[in-house]
Amino acid sequence: MELGPPGGSGPAEPGPRLRGLRGADAAASASSLSRFGAEAGCRASAVAAVLPAGGSGERMGVPTPKQFCPILERPLISYTLQALERVSWIKDIIVAVTRENMETMKGIIQRYQHKRISLVEAGVTRHRSIFNGLKALAEDQPNCRLSKPEVVIIHDAVRPFVEEDVLLKVVTAAQEHGASGAIRPLVSTVISPSADSCLDHSLERARYRASEMPQAFLFDVIYDAYQQCSDYDLEFGTECLHLALKYSHIKAKLVEGSPDLWKVTYKRDLYAAESIIKERISQKVCVVMDTKEDEEHVGHCLEEMLKTELNHVKVTSGQDLQQIILEQCYNFVCVNVMTSDFEETQRLLNMVEESNLSILYPVVVISVHFLDYESVPLGQKMEKVMQIREFAKEAKKRNILLSGLLIYFPQLCSAESHGYRWSKGAKMK
Amino acid sequence: MELGPPGGSGPAEPGPRLRGLRGADAAASASSLSRFGAEAGCRASAVAAVLPAGGSGERMGVPTPKQFCPILERPLISYTLQALERVSWIKDIIVAVTRENMETMKGIIQRYQHKRISLVEAGVTRHRSIFNGLKALAEDQPNCRLSKPEVVIIHDAVRPFVEEDVLLKVVTAAQEHGASGAIRPLVSTVISPSADSCLDHSLERARYRASEMPQAFLFDVIYDAYQQCSDYDLEFGTECLHLALKYSHIKAKLVEGSPDLWKVTYKRDLYAAESIIKERISQKVCVVMDTKEDEEHVGHCLEEMLKTELNHVKVTSGQDLQQIILEQCYNFVCVNVMTSDFEETQRLLNMVEESNLSILYPVVVISVHFLDYESVPLGQKMEKVMQIREFAKEAKKRNILLSGLLIYFPQLCSAESHGYRWSKGAKMK
Repeated sequence: MELGPPGGSGPAEPGPRLRGLRGADAAASASSLSRFGAEAGCRASAVAAVLPAGGSGERMGVPTPKQFCPILERPLISYTLQALERVSWIKDIIVAVTRENMETMKGIIQRYQHKRISLVEAGVTRHRSIFNGLKALAEDQPNCRLSKPEVVIIHDAVRPFVEEDVLLKVVTAAQEHGASGAIRPLVSTVISPSADSCLDHSLERARYRASEMPQAFLFDVIYDAYQQCSDYDLEFGTECLHLALKYSHIKAKLVEGSPDLWKVTYKRDLYAAESIIKERISQKVCVVMDTKEDEEHVGHCLEEMLKTELNHVKVTSGQDLQQIILEQCYNFVCVNVMTSDFEETQRLLNMVEESNLSILYPVVVISVHFLDYESVPLGQKMEKVMQIREFAKEAKKRNILLSGLLIYFPQLCSAESHGYRWSKGAKMK
Repeated sequence: MELGPPGGSGPAEPGPRLRGLRGADAAASASSLSRFGAEAGCRASAVAAVLPAGGSGERMGVPTPKQFCPILERPLISYTLQALERVSWIKDIIVAVTRENMETMKGIIQRYQHKRISLVEAGVTRHRSIFNGLKALAEDQPNCRLSKPEVVIIHDAVRPFVEEDVLLKVVTAAQEHGASGAIRPLVSTVISPSADSCLDHSLERARYRASEMPQAFLFDVIYDAYQQCSDYDLEFGTECLHLALKYSHIKAKLVEGSPDLWKVTYKRDLYAAESIIKERISQKVCVVMDTKEDEEHVGHCLEEMLKTELNHVKVTSGQDLQQIILEQCYNFVCVNVMTSDFEETQRLLNMVEESNLSILYPVVVISVHFLDYESVPLGQKMEKVMQIREFAKEAKKRNILLSGLLIYFPQLCSAESHGYRWSKGAKMK
């Protein structure tokens, strides 16, 4: 038995508040998103997010807390913050970190230029950390610098692949029902052990769901629940939806989430996260040709070849590079047929640098050069081409990974007499 | 609350049957393993395993059923079979596959030279597939070619990282208790939704466990349970431990398993499995030098350098290659200082081929050659060295990935006057 999409049965009722979105479902989410954006713009601070990030990562089997584990050299939590920042209608993001990791977190925010983040000190348990985050948004607290949101999203620092779509769904459902959370089908059957580690009973898998993140609440609903709840809840509880039910008597609306919402828990999850990120950014390549003519001939062949492997391949002779960079392409092949200079490559490097694209992920640039072995003496040309090492060293500091590819094609003997030509590619960096 | 190790409290009672192992715990498992092996040797077919592999993989989002998805070009199920085959005291392995995948499965068994496998037809549900597997072992069935085991292990085709240690634990516990299964702590809170997709109640996470695999049963216990159970159970049930409890009144002993027991369910799990396998086989490298002298000088430097990155590095001038291959090393660097011929490389390729090592994973061989640019005319030498392409093409057919690395070190100008030398590596395949 699968649960249906949330709120799909309710009619759309546009109104002065955000309630107009309650009929939103997956199919309608594109238009809802823009409406939400517009309405949220009228009501500043309507939605905030709280991220508990005080965990120690003991299940990971590594000394670094999992939210700070690097994926492609960037800490996991930075990906999660980026995912939330992309959603313009989330006005404030409160991150709860332990005192000992406060400076690390500040460094991450600065390095990856995260915006709209406020830090609070984590508690010793997940619930205490969330409570501290909520207090930072509650207007009844002394020294509160933030304004109270209508809705608060609670998300995990270690779920980096949260999309705007599901955030919108839980926020919309929370506005209607007071509370909402993402769920997933159970992968394993859940059982209850007896005191002597024997099976007491097992649960029928289809009747239960795994409670995932994000969750969303009317701020007053969840803040009241945390204010009322017992020390036992704060120490041993794991479920915000349970607190909303127990103390605010709100039955949360459950929203089916995507498999990508899973929580990075074990070392294998870091491997999986890395592969997903790699796949996403490696599927988009731009080939920059140094002449219009080559764009049409060589470029077309290259495009057809690359398309068998990649989702998004764009060939350009440079005039629309600015736009391509804006659309977050991280991979460039700069083909230099006309010259062995680096003017084109240098121009591309400058544009990438100005765009700040490489702050989030490394940008890969391959500068391809052709040399005719017979007409160009290798030794003489080589030193010039080797300048790329210096460019690469400089580019690396700005998170741009520049490589050179030298293709030379001497015809050792005539194709007719031996029936083949040979070429050799030499990677210079 | 963590559950303790299974059977740790029971005294060891060696006896004529396998019961002598019931006191085995993690610390004692090494000695238990050999005793088990010895005793199992006296009682052929004491333990068999059943693998349901009839799933369609719909959650993976790919058309191939997940057990047949390739990881490093080898189907997932083949890794799982290998893990079970490594355990010498498992006498028979019954795999239940759908009729349409029967030929695929036969091809996998042949290609990867799996032993002790019998195939049965899968049912339309997991429970029906397992039941079919059990029938193949039950002596009351017509045309039964296998002998009834004392204990049967049930495992999933999509859990490739099962170790002998946990298999021993569940088998030993099954002998004492009649049934046993591996469990893991819950990662997410489990909730019960109401009919209108709202939260009905949530379960206290610490009181429950995820039921994982492997599980083990006294054969009669689980076969009786399957024979008695209802069509509803066979259609909608997911838990063998539940059937043993409901129909054979056996409370299974629960055994804490490792995180590696997880079930490959989503595409991200394939990524994780691939990374784990890659990490395991990439951590072992053997460097073969073509002279004893080089082994001592170049070899020592190389060893020190590689050791900063890898767990197991071995340098040899070739005399103990046979032993190194036996110990399942999949990565070789063959350094040829003395010659640009391929004698050494060819010798290594022959030994790898004879060992059948490359049946399970691809073996990587890098043949390194040095050329002095000034003393050896490049064009003249190149053609000879390019022969490696032919070797590589042949080796590829036997799952050996051969690459050539040509390092030439011309001194373009004196190191004194320009302060550097340069070298260039050219990958030839």
